[in-house]
Amino acid sequence: MCQLLGMNANVPTDVMFSFTGLANRADEHKDGFGIAFFEGRGLRHFVDHHSARVSPLAELVQRYPIRSDNVIAHIRKATQGQVSLENTHPFVRELWGRYWVFAHNGNLKDFQPRLHAAFRPVGQTDSELAFCWLMQELAKAHCTVPSIAELSLTLAELMPQLNVYGTFNMLLSNGQALWAHGSTHLHYLLRRHPFGRVHLQDEDLSVDFAPQTTEQDRVAMIATQPLTRDEPWVAFQPGELKVFVGGELLT
Amino acid sequence: MCQLLGMNANVPTDVMFSFTGLANRADEHKDGFGIAFFEGRGLRHFVDHHSARVSPLAELVQRYPIRSDNVIAHIRKATQGQVSLENTHPFVRELWGRYWVFAHNGNLKDFQPRLHAAFRPVGQTDSELAFCWLMQELAKAHCTVPSIAELSLTLAELMPQLNVYGTFNMLLSNGQALWAHGSTHLHYLLRRHPFGRVHLQDEDLSVDFAPQTTEQDRVAMIATQPLTRDEPWVAFQPGELKVFVGGELLT
Repeated sequence: MCQLLGMNANVPTDVMFSFTGLANRADEHKDGFGIAFFEGRGLRHFVDHHSARVSPLAELVQRYPIRSDNVIAHIRKATQGQVSLENTHPFVRELWGRYWVFAHNGNLKDFQPRLHAAFRPVGQTDSELAFCWLMQELAKAHCTVPSIAELSLTLAELMPQLNVYGTFNMLLSNGQALWAHGSTHLHYLLRRHPFGRVHLQDEDLSVDFAPQTTEQDRVAMIATQPLTRDEPWVAFQPGELKVFVGGELLT
Repeated sequence: MCQLLGMNANVPTDVMFSFTGLANRADEHKDGFGIAFFEGRGLRHFVDHHSARVSPLAELVQRYPIRSDNVIAHIRKATQGQVSLENTHPFVRELWGRYWVFAHNGNLKDFQPRLHAAFRPVGQTDSELAFCWLMQELAKAHCTVPSIAELSLTLAELMPQLNVYGTFNMLLSNGQALWAHGSTHLHYLLRRHPFGRVHLQDEDLSVDFAPQTTEQDRVAMIATQPLTRDEPWVAFQPGELKVFVGGELLT
C-alpha cells in the first residue's frame, strides 16, 4: 500500500518533519516518491522513481525548508503500472488557469472510463486515469473556476463513482483548498495553538513547534496512518470527503 | 534578457557541466531559473524564483547527474509578470498523453490571443500565454499525436504568428524531439565522436567528455549564447525553426 501525506495551512509552513516521518516508511514503499508544494498559484513538483530513503531529492526536501500552504506527498508501492517516473504520484494538470495536484492510495479494478476531453494519462496507472477523469468531469460541470463550496459538491458526487472500482483514498488540491477522500485508511489532524513538542510515530525524533508558530497559525495534516504519537489524529469514515481551507476543516 | 539552454541526445546524458555554465550567467538573470528533464515519457521539473546562483535546487542540479534525452532550462530576467514561482520557465502542459515543456526568451508586445480551448496561463507572462496558444493550435491541428515531421510543419506555420509580436526565441519538447526557434539570439552545437576536452566560455572550468561517451553518442546543445569556447556553435538565422531528434539536426 502506498502512503499519502497532505498539509493545508493558513500561513506558509514547511513539512520537513512530517516528510521525514513519511520517508522513514519508504522501506516498504520503495517504488518512488513525490511531493508538490503550492506557493500561491505557483507549484514546485518533485518526483523520483527511487525510494525516498535514498533519493537526493528526498534528502533535499528534508533539509531545505520549502514553505507552502498546500502540500501533497506520496510514497509508492506499485500495484498497477511499472516503476517509472511517469507513474510516480502526485500528478499535475492545469484547469481554469490553476494547477491541480492529485495523489491516490488504493487500487481501482476494471476502471476504464471514456476520456473525451483534454486530459489524458501519460503513464499507465489507474490513479492517473482516475485523475484525468476527475479533471474532465470537473471541467464539464463548471465552465470557469467555481467556489470551493461548489467544487466540493461536485467532488462529493464524483468520489463514489470512483470508489466503487476499489480502494480510493485520495488527496487533491488546486492551491486554494485541499480535498481528502477516505476509502479505507486516511487520518487527519488539526494542529493549532498551543503548539508543543510532538514525536514521530516510527522513530525517536521530535520537534517543538512552539518557537516557530504564532497563536493564529492553523495547520491541517492528512496522512494514511497517524505520523505522530501524541496528537489526536481522527480516522476518516469510509466514503468521507473532507475539505481543508486555511488549516481548518470546512466540511 | 533571459537565457535558454536545451539538450537533445540519443542516450540519456547529464547537463551538469552546461547548467553550471548557464548558472554562472545568473548574476544578471536573478529572477528565477527552471529546468525540465524528460526520462522517457516521465518528467522532472524544477523551478525556483530565486537566482540559480543561490538556489539549493540549482546546486542539486549541478551535482546530481540526472540523465535525460531531452532537457530544457531557463534563467530569467523578468520583462513581463512579477518575480514569482508561477512565472518561472519552463512551463509544462499535457497534450495527447504526453508532457510538453516550453521556455521562451524574448518579449511579445500586445499579444492577446483568443484562448478558447483547454489551456490557460496560471501566471502573468507573455511566454506562458504564447505556450497556451501554441498548445491550443497544435490540439486543433491534429486530433492525436502526429509524427515529428507533421508536428514540425504545424509549428513552422505557428512560429511566425508569434514572432510578429516581438522577440520569440523558444525551446519546446514533448520528450520525443526538441524544437528550437531563433528570433534574435540562439545557437546550436552538434557534439559527437571524437569527444574531447571543452572549456566553458565564461570561466576557467573544463570537462573531458571522452571517458564518459562512446562513438555512437550524439548530443545537440542549444543555447542563447555559446556556452563553450572551443566548439563550432552555429547561430540561428532570424525566423529559423530547427528540430533535434536523437542528438541530430532533422531540419
